[in-house]
Amino acid sequence: MCMEFNLQQTDTKSAARAGLLQTDHGQIETPIFMPVGTAGTVKGVHFKELEKDIKAQIILGNTYHLYLRPGTNIIEQAGGLHKFIGWDKPILTDSGGYQVYSLTDIRKLKESGVTFQSHIDGSKHEFTPEKVIDIQRSIGADIIMAFDECTPYPCDYDYAKNSLGITHRWLKRCISHFEQTEPKYGFSQSFFPIVQGSTYTDLRNISAEFIAGQGADGNAIGGLSVGEPHEMMYEMTELVCNILPEDKPRYLMGVGTPANILESIALGVDMFDCVMPTRNGRNGMLFTSEGIINIKNKKWENDFSAIDPFGESFVDQQYSKAYVRHLFSAKEMLGGIIGSIHNLGFYLWLIAQARKHILEGDFATWKNVMVKKVSNRL
Amino acid sequence: MCMEFNLQQTDTKSAARAGLLQTDHGQIETPIFMPVGTAGTVKGVHFKELEKDIKAQIILGNTYHLYLRPGTNIIEQAGGLHKFIGWDKPILTDSGGYQVYSLTDIRKLKESGVTFQSHIDGSKHEFTPEKVIDIQRSIGADIIMAFDECTPYPCDYDYAKNSLGITHRWLKRCISHFEQTEPKYGFSQSFFPIVQGSTYTDLRNISAEFIAGQGADGNAIGGLSVGEPHEMMYEMTELVCNILPEDKPRYLMGVGTPANILESIALGVDMFDCVMPTRNGRNGMLFTSEGIINIKNKKWENDFSAIDPFGESFVDQQYSKAYVRHLFSAKEMLGGIIGSIHNLGFYLWLIAQARKHILEGDFATWKNVMVKKVSNRL
Repeated sequence: MCMEFNLQQTDTKSAARAGLLQTDHGQIETPIFMPVGTAGTVKGVHFKELEKDIKAQIILGNTYHLYLRPGTNIIEQAGGLHKFIGWDKPILTDSGGYQVYSLTDIRKLKESGVTFQSHIDGSKHEFTPEKVIDIQRSIGADIIMAFDECTPYPCDYDYAKNSLGITHRWLKRCISHFEQTEPKYGFSQSFFPIVQGSTYTDLRNISAEFIAGQGADGNAIGGLSVGEPHEMMYEMTELVCNILPEDKPRYLMGVGTPANILESIALGVDMFDCVMPTRNGRNGMLFTSEGIINIKNKKWENDFSAIDPFGESFVDQQYSKAYVRHLFSAKEMLGGIIGSIHNLGFYLWLIAQARKHILEGDFATWKNVMVKKVSNRL
Repeated sequence: MCMEFNLQQTDTKSAARAGLLQTDHGQIETPIFMPVGTAGTVKGVHFKELEKDIKAQIILGNTYHLYLRPGTNIIEQAGGLHKFIGWDKPILTDSGGYQVYSLTDIRKLKESGVTFQSHIDGSKHEFTPEKVIDIQRSIGADIIMAFDECTPYPCDYDYAKNSLGITHRWLKRCISHFEQTEPKYGFSQSFFPIVQGSTYTDLRNISAEFIAGQGADGNAIGGLSVGEPHEMMYEMTELVCNILPEDKPRYLMGVGTPANILESIALGVDMFDCVMPTRNGRNGMLFTSEGIINIKNKKWENDFSAIDPFGESFVDQQYSKAYVRHLFSAKEMLGGIIGSIHNLGFYLWLIAQARKHILEGDFATWKNVMVKKVSNRL
């Protein structure tokens, strides 16, 4: 385990931190948002746009999806995911625990692992902690995640407690297998365990203590943003952040809206991922520094101003609101492409601003203003 | 009428020509291929990619689609189509004659014009020659087309003959209305009439003579590439090109495959448009200098070579065949985007090569080699 994380600044009025995370594929400035490239592509976006326009520093891949298609055999032949997709910056792979539960109809969880049927062709597969580590070795992400059970919301206490036991036992098996195996492509891989425990304070406490004790390069918080009220999500995040080691990056999985991200930075989170900017972008919801635009709305029909005059990506200046509305109205794919690039560019801009304000020492004040602005419906 | 066309070179062993067409939005080097931007967008492609990667010099818009959505009111408020979509190079608009027949279920052709129901919402509309000129004035294309009836294939002789009479009478009304109206946005617009006559030699002769007599800035050949055998299309094209004025550009509408384009250049055609590079690109058919690739084929599964090592657009070098196959297999939109950019880039490269060989004097020899190569199934 050799990924380096250096804290540069911690905010005095919140738990927000700015840091630098060093991987063999380059440095990541935290806090950071990671665009989601589930099946080896951030939907509708070229990698050169991710790098140059959106200014992404790390992207996400998904073990479940990549294992089923194209399969580890093809990825290994290509020399790993970086080479297969043509992206030379860091990649993190989600372990597939979440997808096995959200995408497959027929699955069975046992102590040994999970058997499930592919959502693509119904074929039968088994994921065990060891196998998921092997797959992530083959994919070759810079950061690989533990295999866990992501509990739904609501989740009754007994289920959450039993599930947490399995997640922790699986974690020990993941770590043991991770330590017994080697990276395949000449660069190092780091392993992040995941805190679970649903919305129960005592379970989250137990889990955070257990995870903190593993000495991993970084630590993740899972099982949130699955339908629970925002205040409950913040409460759990705060509780967990207070226990997880200060000198390691903290990754809040699957979160969230621009406001969620700003609030969670204030609680001490360093890394985020979410499909929202691309999924909502494809559906015409644009996040901007002044608030949220539903570009399909008739009010934009003859608004020929730029979709975001303060945006830094090329789509922000090039296309007008009226034109993008027309694209959505005519169901033209360029609409979703523009929405995705704009939203990702906005997320990366917002988080870079957060980092700047942490470094400058006025994060908390700035955050309180921005949370209101970015939540505003235009 | 003030568009300038200068012939630079005519091939000695074929009727191929190289020329320069001057519009108020810049110069077009002919022969040229025009990417189709039906509803104000070349599907899945950014305008900056069209300009920088694909090297498009002129694009097509469609009167029928733009009239229905976003409507001339919005386009006029934007200051014309160029401003609405953000494209500063030349635009040609198809008149809508073809779409009224291919897209609307309920329509009625009378001497006065055509009534039809929108394919979007069933609303009733009428297109007359005068109205179609007015709409194209509002859209503000650099080149606007006559309103005609595009006959299907096969088409019986009597229908074709009657239809040609209407097309010619409508043409006189189009010209009269064009001459009585003015461009709306401070740059000039040229008007192209369209030769029809189905696959009947005598009708094509009559029509070509009639069109040639109008003294237009350029002339189009319509009603081909609608299902007739290629040899019949070439026969009609050759016949018409021999009659149309030599000193004006000739536009063969809706054609075609790379081989069709090369053969038609040899017959004296200067301008082309076709949905094939984008439509087929979205479906995984890639045209390359070595032949046609069905990228969905399993044979490309572990071919990690560039999708076109000789291609000039960024997608050609950046993405491997195996990766693009994966994108199509996973139904990821980036696959269709890459296919569209690649194919358009290839069409523009191919036609630029044709132009180069015309100027260098070895077009006919080069064309015979290339027709075989580009038709090859890889």
